This record gives sequence, C-alpha cells and structure tokens, in this order.
Amino acid sequence: MIPALEQSWLWGLIGDDDAAAIWSPDRQIQAMLRFEAALTRAMGAVGQAAPDACEAVAWQIDGFSPDMGALSAATGGDGLPVPELIRQLRGAVGQDAKLVHTGATSQDVIDTATVLILRDMSDLVAGRLAAIAHQVEALEQAFGANPLMGRTRMQAALPMQVADRLAPWRIAVEDHIAALRDLRPGVELLQLGGAVGNRAGFGDAGDAIAADMARQLGLGDPARAWHVNRAPIVAYGGLMAAISGSLGKIGQDIALMTQQGIDAMTVAGGGGSSAMPHKQNPILAELLVTLARFNAGQIGLLHQAMIHEQDRSGSAWTLEWLVLPQICMATARGLSATETLLSQVTSIGDASGD
Amino acid sequence: MIPALEQSWLWGLIGDDDAAAIWSPDRQIQAMLRFEAALTRAMGAVGQAAPDACEAVAWQIDGFSPDMGALSAATGGDGLPVPELIRQLRGAVGQDAKLVHTGATSQDVIDTATVLILRDMSDLVAGRLAAIAHQVEALEQAFGANPLMGRTRMQAALPMQVADRLAPWRIAVEDHIAALRDLRPGVELLQLGGAVGNRAGFGDAGDAIAADMARQLGLGDPARAWHVNRAPIVAYGGLMAAISGSLGKIGQDIALMTQQGIDAMTVAGGGGSSAMPHKQNPILAELLVTLARFNAGQIGLLHQAMIHEQDRSGSAWTLEWLVLPQICMATARGLSATETLLSQVTSIGDASGD
Amino acid sequence: MIPALEQSWLWGLIGDDDAAAIWSPDRQIQAMLRFEAALTRAMGAVGQAAPDACEAVAWQIDGFSPDMGALSAATGGDGLPVPELIRQLRGAVGQDAKLVHTGATSQDVIDTATVLILRDMSDLVAGRLAAIAHQVEALEQAFGANPLMGRTRMQAALPMQVADRLAPWRIAVEDHIAALRDLRPGVELLQLGGAVGNRAGFGDAGDAIAADMARQLGLGDPARAWHVNRAPIVAYGGLMAAISGSLGKIGQDIALMTQQGIDAMTVAGGGGSSAMPHKQNPILAELLVTLARFNAGQIGLLHQAMIHEQDRSGSAWTLEWLVLPQICMATARGLSATETLLSQVTSIGDASGD
Amino acid sequence: MIPALEQSWLWGLIGDDDAAAIWSPDRQIQAMLRFEAALTRAMGAVGQAAPDACEAVAWQIDGFSPDMGALSAATGGDGLPVPELIRQLRGAVGQDAKLVHTGATSQDVIDTATVLILRDMSDLVAGRLAAIAHQVEALEQAFGANPLMGRTRMQAALPMQVADRLAPWRIAVEDHIAALRDLRPGVELLQLGGAVGNRAGFGDAGDAIAADMARQLGLGDPARAWHVNRAPIVAYGGLMAAISGSLGKIGQDIALMTQQGIDAMTVAGGGGSSAMPHKQNPILAELLVTLARFNAGQIGLLHQAMIHEQDRSGSAWTLEWLVLPQICMATARGLSATETLLSQVTSIGDASGD
Repeated sequence: MIPALEQSWLWGLIGDDDAAAIWSPDRQIQAMLRFEAALTRAMGAVGQAAPDACEAVAWQIDGFSPDMGALSAATGGDGLPVPELIRQLRGAVGQDAKLVHTGATSQDVIDTATVLILRDMSDLVAGRLAAIAHQVEALEQAFGANPLMGRTRMQAALPMQVADRLAPWRIAVEDHIAALRDLRPGVELLQLGGAVGNRAGFGDAGDAIAADMARQLGLGDPARAWHVNRAPIVAYGGLMAAISGSLGKIGQDIALMTQQGIDAMTVAGGGGSSAMPHKQNPILAELLVTLARFNAGQIGLLHQAMIHEQDRSGSAWTLEWLVLPQICMATARGLSATETLLSQVTSIGDASGD
Repeated sequence: MIPALEQSWLWGLIGDDDAAAIWSPDRQIQAMLRFEAALTRAMGAVGQAAPDACEAVAWQIDGFSPDMGALSAATGGDGLPVPELIRQLRGAVGQDAKLVHTGATSQDVIDTATVLILRDMSDLVAGRLAAIAHQVEALEQAFGANPLMGRTRMQAALPMQVADRLAPWRIAVEDHIAALRDLRPGVELLQLGGAVGNRAGFGDAGDAIAADMARQLGLGDPARAWHVNRAPIVAYGGLMAAISGSLGKIGQDIALMTQQGIDAMTVAGGGGSSAMPHKQNPILAELLVTLARFNAGQIGLLHQAMIHEQDRSGSAWTLEWLVLPQICMATARGLSATETLLSQVTSIGDASGD
Repeated sequence: MIPALEQSWLWGLIGDDDAAAIWSPDRQIQAMLRFEAALTRAMGAVGQAAPDACEAVAWQIDGFSPDMGALSAATGGDGLPVPELIRQLRGAVGQDAKLVHTGATSQDVIDTATVLILRDMSDLVAGRLAAIAHQVEALEQAFGANPLMGRTRMQAALPMQVADRLAPWRIAVEDHIAALRDLRPGVELLQLGGAVGNRAGFGDAGDAIAADMARQLGLGDPARAWHVNRAPIVAYGGLMAAISGSLGKIGQDIALMTQQGIDAMTVAGGGGSSAMPHKQNPILAELLVTLARFNAGQIGLLHQAMIHEQDRSGSAWTLEWLVLPQICMATARGLSATETLLSQVTSIGDASGD
Repeated sequence: MIPALEQSWLWGLIGDDDAAAIWSPDRQIQAMLRFEAALTRAMGAVGQAAPDACEAVAWQIDGFSPDMGALSAATGGDGLPVPELIRQLRGAVGQDAKLVHTGATSQDVIDTATVLILRDMSDLVAGRLAAIAHQVEALEQAFGANPLMGRTRMQAALPMQVADRLAPWRIAVEDHIAALRDLRPGVELLQLGGAVGNRAGFGDAGDAIAADMARQLGLGDPARAWHVNRAPIVAYGGLMAAISGSLGKIGQDIALMTQQGIDAMTVAGGGGSSAMPHKQNPILAELLVTLARFNAGQIGLLHQAMIHEQDRSGSAWTLEWLVLPQICMATARGLSATETLLSQVTSIGDASGD
C-alpha cells in the first residue's frame, strides 16, 4: 500500500519484477476472466445451456479487454470489481448475457483468481528455493571445512566448521520446498458457491459444474465452497512468512559475520555510503532481516482476517486482499535477494579462530 | 505474562486447567528430566559408559525433585534453568556426575522438553477438535433443515438452510484435525546438538545417541539438530492460531445470530450484567473472538522469533518461550469454550425469514 | 507493497489520491532536494563557504530533476537513493561539488524528507478530522434526540438516544485533533548528524548549520541528531493507527446498525452485488474496519523497527520505510471514506425500539 | 497467559515483583472496591442518599474481603467479576444494598480500577526511567571520552567517542519521562457511564457524582464516559511499548558491543552455559531485545481492541485485559533489567580502534 511503488527509488531495493508481474492488475483480471470462461464452458458441458453457444461466449470472454478505469471506479462503490466486470462482459456478449456468471458470485471469481495467482507464485517460489538450496550446498562444498568460531547468544562458544553454520540454512530451505509441495493441493482449489456459498444458484448442477471447472482450470474440486474458511490462505501466507523468516536468519548471520572484527565472511558488492566512501554495507543481508520482520507482522493480519461474519465478510476479506499480495511480494524479493547475496560470497571462515 | 493468573478473577473466563497442567512448571521440569535420563541411558546403550552405571544414574534422574526456587533464581542469571538443574542433578548423583548431560547443551534439554509438552497439547487439541466436529454435526442434524437468512457483508442476502452456515464450521474443524495429524511428525523431533549444534561433544557417538534417545522418548530422530530452525515450532503455532481463528468465526457468527432483531439462534446460560439483570450476554461467543484475535497477534511474534543469530539466539529463543505457551493456552481455552457454547445452543434458524 | 496499486481495481476502494500525492516518489525526492538546498545555503549562512556560491548551488538544487530510474537502480546496490542522488547533483553542479551534502549523511536526507512529508500528512489529516467532527455534530443535531436501543456485548441493553452513540464518535475524533496538534512539534524535527550522528563532519559549525536549516525548513531544531531514536516516528504512527481505530469503531457500528432486523440506521449508496441486485452493501463501513485492523497490524512493525543497532540500522530503518507510508495511506483513506460514508447517512434511530 | 508464571523457572528471568504486585488480583479487586466506596460516598455527597448511611456502607466496602474463588467462577459465566462482587457486597451490606453500585455498570468499575493500577504503574515506570537516565549519565561521565568506532549498518564507519553512542540512549529515556508526564492526565480519568454509557442511571446527578468520585480518587473528571473510546489506553500501551523499544535498542547495542572481536564493552555477571563454562552470556542485554519485540507485538493487539461494537464490546474489551497487563509487565521488567545491566558495565570504548 505504498503509492507508485514501482516508480519509487525503493523499488530498486525491495521490488521483484517477476512477482510483480504475477500480482499485476492485468494478471488478476485475466485470472478472473479464466474463471468466467470456465464457468460458461461448464454450463455447456453439464447441459445447462447449448455447448456451442457457451463456447462462443467463452471465446469472447477469453479475449475480453475490460475497461480497467471503470473497474477501479466501480470497486469504490461495490467493494469489489466483479459486478462491473460482469456488466462489461454481458454488454460485450449481448443476447447471451445469461451465459455469463449465472449462479456464481463475486467471491467465486476473486477467490479462484487468487488461487490461480498463488499457483504461479508457488512455481516461482519453488524454483528459487531450489536454486538457493543449490547455492548453499555449493558454499558448503567450497568453504564447509574451514574453521569457524561457533557463536551462541552472540558470544564465541566453541570452534566448529563452516558447514555447521551453513547446513541449517540449507536444511531450512529444503524443508520449505517439501512443505510447499505438500501445501499446494490444499490451496489450489476452485471456489464455487454462489450468493451464499451453497451452490443453490446452479440448481442441481452445482457439483457437476464445479467438477468441470476444476478440471478446466487444473484446480482441486472441494465438496463445498470454502468461502468462509480462510485456513488454506492463512497456511499459505504462513509458509511464505516462514520462508522469509529462514532467509532473515541467513541475512542476520551474514550481517554479523561480515562485521569488521568478526571477519568470518567476505561478500563482494556491498552498498556505498554518501558520507563514507570506504564502506561496504551488507545491504542485501540487512534487507533479508527487514523482509522477514515485515512478513512476521503481516501474517498476524492474515490470521485476523479469518473471522468472517456469517456467509461472507467484506471487512475480513478486504483485509486479506491488502495483506496476502504483500506477503508474497516480500517473500519473492527475499528469495531473489538471497540468490544475489549468496552469489556474492567470496569467503567464509574465521581464519583468526578468535 | 499476567501475574497470578490462576488466582485472578480472569482465570474463570480464560483459563483452561488441562492446558495449564500440561504447561505447568512441574511438567516442564519433568520433561527436562526425561531428556536427561534418556541421554544417560543412551550413553550406556551406545557404549560410552557402563550400562549399569547409566541405568542407576538415570533412575536417580527419573525420581529427582529439583529445588524450583533455585532454578528460578539461577534463570535470572543464566537466562535458562538448565545449568542450575544440571548442577543440582550432578550434586545428587555424586561421583557419576560425568554421566549427566555430557555432550549436551541447554537448548537440547529445553527444546526436547517443549516438544514433549507439545505432544501432550496435540493430544488434548485433537480430542477437543473431534468433540466439536461431532457437536456441530449433531446441530446440523437437529436444526440443519431450518430456514435461515443467508447474510453476506452483514446484510440479508438470500434464504438458505441452517446447514449452509454450520457445514463450514464443521469442515474447518475437520480440516484442522487432518492438518494437526499431518503436522505432528515434523514437530515431535528430538533436539540434540550440543554446544554449537553439531553433536561434536559426543565424539562419534552423537547420531547413535540421538537415535536411542528418540526411540526412548517416542520422538522422531532428525539427521541434525534443528536448534536454529524454528520453522516446525512456527508451523505448530500457526496451526494453533488458525484453530483459534476458525473458532473465532464460530463465535462471531453466534454473537451476530443471537442479536435481538436477528434472532437466528438461541443459547442458554448467557452471562449476567451488573446493571441490567434482564440481559443474557453471549460471553463465550465473544470470548472466541477475543482468543482468535489474541492468537493472531501472538503468531506474528513467533515468526519474529525465527531470526536466530548464528548458532543460538538468546533473544529470539526467549521470545518463543513467552509466546508459544500462551498461544497454546488460548487455543485450548477456545476449544473448551466452544464445547460449552455449542452444548448450550437451544435453537438455530431464522423462523421469521427476514 | 502491492504492485501497480494505482492501476489496480483495488485502488478505487482503498486509494486516497491526496495522500498518494504526498507520498509520491516525486514529492519524496523533492523533499530530499529541499534538505540539500537548505544545507548548502546554511553553509553560506554560517560562513563555511561563500554565500553567493552557496546560493547559486542551492538554486541549482532547487530546480534539479534527478534521473529517477538511476536512483531506483542504485538503491538496489546502496540500500538507499542518496549516494546516487548526490552523485547526480554533484555532477550537475560541477566545480562546486564540495558545496553539496558536505558533512551530512544519507539518513539526514531521508529522515528530514520524511518529516517534511509527515508535515503535509498532518495538515491533511487535521483537516479531515475537523470535517468529520463537524459531520458527526450535524448528525447529532439532526438525529440525536431519536430513540435508539443501547446495545452492549451485541445485545439490546437499555433504550437511549442516538446522541448517546454518536457523541463518543465525535469525542474520539476531537481528541485525535488535539493529540495531533500536541504531537507535531516533537515530530517535525530536522535530522542532522552526519556519518555517525555526532555532527563531526561539520567541524564546529554543526549546531549553527542545524539551526539555520531548521529555520529555513520550518522544522524544530533538536540539540542532537535523533537518528537512532525512532520514538517520534513510532508515536506518529501510533496516532495514525489510533485514528484508524476510532474510525473502525464507527464503521463497525454502522455495519451493525444497518443490518436488516436491527434497522437502526439507513445509508444511501451502498455497494452492489454480482449475484444479488437487491443488496445494498455497507462497503465503506466495512472498509473502515479493514483499515483499522490493517493499521493495528502495521503499528507493531513500527515498534519492531525501533531496535536500531549501534549508530544506524539498515534493517530496522528499511522496515520503517515499508510500514510508515502504508500506515499513513490507510489512515488517509479511512478519513476520506468516513467523510463519504457520513454524508450518505439518511436516518439514525431505532424507531421500533426493540 | 503463561500458567503458574511466578512458580516457573522463567519468572527469575522475566518476572518483576513490583509490577506483579501492582497487577495482582488483590490490588485489582481493591481498586474495584475503591470505586464502589467512592460511588457510595458520592451518593451521600450529592444528596441521593443519607450521608451517614453512605459513609457506613462505604466503610464496609473499604474493609470488604471478597470470596476470590467465587469471583473467578462467576467470571466464567458473566464474562467479568463485577456482578458477583456486587452480589457479595450487597449481601454483606444487607438492607442498605441499594447504596451499592446503583446507577453504575461493570465497565465503570473495571475501567476505573484499571486506571488506578495504571497510575501506580506510571509511578513505578517514571522512577525507573529517572534512575536509568542517571545511570547512563554516569556512564557518559566515566567513559564518554573514550574512543569508539562508530558502526552503521553493522559495519565500522568512523571513529567517534563513547558519548556519541550513549547520549542517544539517555535522550530517548529522558524523552519517555516527559512523554509519560504529559500522557498521564489523559489516562487517569474516572470512568462513569452506567449501563449504556450515558449516566442515565443516576438521574440528574450523574455529573455531580462523577465530579465527587473523581475528587475522592484523585482522577480526572471527563465530561462523559469514555467507555468505547480506548484511545487513552492505547496511547498508554504505546508509550510502554516505546519504552521497551528504546531499552531494546540499548540491549541490542550491548549484545553487539560485547562480542568477542568487537570488544567495545565489558559487562560483569554474564550468564553461565551448561556446556561451556567459559562463556559469559549477555543474558540481560538479550532479554531487553526480547521484551521490546514482545511488546511490539502486543501493542498491535491493543489497537485491534479499539473496535468496540456499539455501546460496549465484550470481545474487544476482554482482549484489552489480556494484553495491557502483559505490556506493562514487560515494560517494568525491561526497566529493572536495564538498571541491573547498566550497573554491571565495567568499561566502554573500543581501545583497539578497529
């Protein structure tokens, strides 16, 4: 919720272009349109409407370019963009308007779109985690046998090897890879419930439509709408924040290890200072700590947003919209910063053996 | 961190005696002693010391009653109770003092003890979740077919059935049961690393000792110490907070449904008012919201505590000690309050069909 | 930290153009340039350099248009934009480069710029608070004498008047007006410390330069740099979050009062639903709750960012950059949404007197 | 919300006996009784009842010893202890029962009692802050002229003096002393509103009773009840958390300065290790960081608790009860730990001038 973030000087530090593309307004709207096209095609598939007509309408939806300004303006009035999006879609479709969105509700569209975006995020995150695990492994191979003073409670403890500090970094990352893999099926679920979540708007065809849509979109097909059960979203955010936390631990270690006087690691490419040209500031190491603490704060809000009143909470759901993207953005940036930072490490080990 | 909580008037509202027993100082110290006894026996089992001597010492540890006041006082100086506990144990054991704690460090003791406590917590939580799922199911059977006005964004939406509101309550609880079952093996892990986490203090016997200890204690045996990888603890806290969140949603619903004018639910046994004897306040429903929001705040701190410096962070670890017990206490109380509250429901359904 | 926020459908709901302008990258950079120009002029004023040369350079700084892309890119390396901004400025100034930024450090620039932005925010917030106080007062005059069922713990309590509910809304707002007025002098302070915060880079002229700069910029002149003392920033964020909290209480009340069945308030212009054209959703009332809870989460992070290591913390300071703007943005939007919402109230009072 | 905290080993580290006494159940109940006695006497003073009878009843209230177990049990049903306390009081008073609590409500009692406790807290905190300011000043006098390497972003920056690091510690503390002094009048306010907050239960005498009670209790007399305006409580908690934050910065500095290899400070009396007898762990320095982060998390919850529904929120108010005491306890312990820690400092200054 920082204005013009991509235009800000801050973006160079905290921005991640890949994650920003995934969460871009265009991609969000495209994901909403994918929901609508899948619904229309499913109506044809289950016999609620003529398959040819449905395919024709779905084809129009696939290629539709909404008026984004109007979506934003209408969101100010409606609290969400879907009523206006549907109005635009139905206007474009003309006489087949009844083949658009029938039986569904805004939450179905937005939640399914979010899930599609999270799927892309998961691919991004999984790839980066794997790369980082390899990087740490390479550092272990290069420097792992070097002596290093073990430090506990920030005090010299006992001599150990560099591998003893790095292995926990790698294991944490590997654990996150496994946790993400296990978590995905429970998150990548179609949302389809209609006005009050019971699929009543689809007559008897709700479950069949859901099954067909899930197949089209490559999502899981839950027995019911999960509209007021935000536990999967919270678990996802929790894992993203935990990833940030593990990266924050790496960053904190590097910031401590590169202190002059400790000199347990050297890193190339540190940041410059406007007052002290001689300094090499461990910018990215500090950034990992920042992002970890940032996400640790945000995850609490995702938990606050679990308390949906009755059959849909506007206030809790909107809170989720404000928090989930920034958790993901911060996690993604933490991952890319870690990749850069680890690639800059030039030595590890505490030769002085203080 | 509320003084004399059990003696306070507040305890009657927010206290859970079963969870308090699990987290009691006695149980914590007993769990620490179980670690020490298992270590001593493992030293015998792997051939580091005479099995008979080890068994004799372990038997003394099993029955040891520490001076709790001295533990507390020493914790003020050492930051943790283990050095003093070992001093007391070694004093009791006498000439076999070297069979106590050799190769281990305080973190091994405290983390393993915490895991043993979390195992008991998990049993408590799992049992209560199952009971609540049955309660909701019974309410669905009793009242599920009644008409109820669906409400979204706090506004009347479309008529539906009571089951449409209750099923999501039950499914959330059932999901938590499955999530807890899946999470437990990754949490119930022995901690054994020694001074800097690399098991160097055990010579070549570290892994064998760990395997034997894990077997004795019924815990998993990780390949390395997880001393600086708090992700399992964070995931556990996250699930506890998510459970609180799902119960908070139930509580919020009940508080809204029992409003005069809405009258979609009746609950017996509401709280009295000092000024308005006619009132029936939905105390427990509100409490569920309180506890959910409380835990949503605490979970962020558990994430903050992931950032361990180097090979052990005193500050992050101590933060975990302040936060994890209260998350568990709040979750447990949320569960017991839900059981009571659901047992008091006398009708559900919006007869007026507003 | 949401990508392309202004281009997103979400902006229509949560965006505040006035606040976004205040926090825009351009305004931030302009504020940084104001710092630099004031410093250069102060060097002339205190006799560190020729006043004419200083004025000439300052005049160039006043009109300088930096290469924003280069600022962002360099921030990725340096952790902040100031080294690159100074490089650009000195390049533009040419042989008088030593009249730019001499003795100062990046933190002086960024913190002073932030304070200048907060001053504009305070003006915006103060004006809106005053408008809202007047709006509530008008509602009290229009509807205050109407009967209203007092509700405590969400239950009907005793009959009262509409004024009994509205007066606390107004008083909270009036209190915030006074609190903001009292807080501003302690926040609107020049930052000037140089490399390690002791003004050593200015020789003996540090305090005189600070006094002159403070006069130029209309800021307070503290005896020392406050670089590692973030309490004023935290207090400011705390007040912004408290304002959001008071508005959230208003929003929660309106959402509850406009429930069908309670019918204690009518509001025109509610949001539409894609599935239920008959609904009038209390979008803005819910939004106030969302923003209050959002800021309640963010304020904790501002407190986390108080822990600056030694003479400047990159990680804590960057966390502040991520959090402070979004607190302000959310507060500003809460205020504008409240103004709109209160203007839409068409009746208050519980005629049925349930 | 940690069970049997005072009996736990943890108490030796995180406990503060003075603060625990202030927040003890006995003191809380005594403060509630002071409210009731003052109300009864005020009824006599304003002519609502015979002064002699009121004095006799108030005298009984002054000396009353409630059945604490019954208060706790009743709180489980009523959500608060006041209905049962009044029942016990009226039972003790007998035929003059109508002179007890008439016109008041539970919130009046609990909020006023909380304010009386916060007044004692403020005295404790103010005294400790002053002591710490003197301690830092003494350290500045003893070591302030020693050379010290300034460190920014955890990297050696430029040489400076020890005073350059210590002065910000002291100034932050002095600022908090002033802020607390300024804040107190806005917090130390009588709460008196009756059932729905409008003093209707006192007939025309509400304001006069409030004025007399405020005078008796030495509290401010607001024009209206502040029952749903929690901003003063939040501001108080915010200041306590900010104090913790400033102490956390001191602790972080000391933990960094006492690292072997940095050696910029020596502190006597560090904590022992169970595995490494040679270590001197900076326990209290780390504890200050822990407590700062703990309170940074709690303060967000106090903001969440601002959203009171209508004329009293059970859920938000109860959340405040869970959070406010632990914020105060953590602040108090941070202060006492700082006093101890600063008294253990034996040298400051980086003789090696790395």
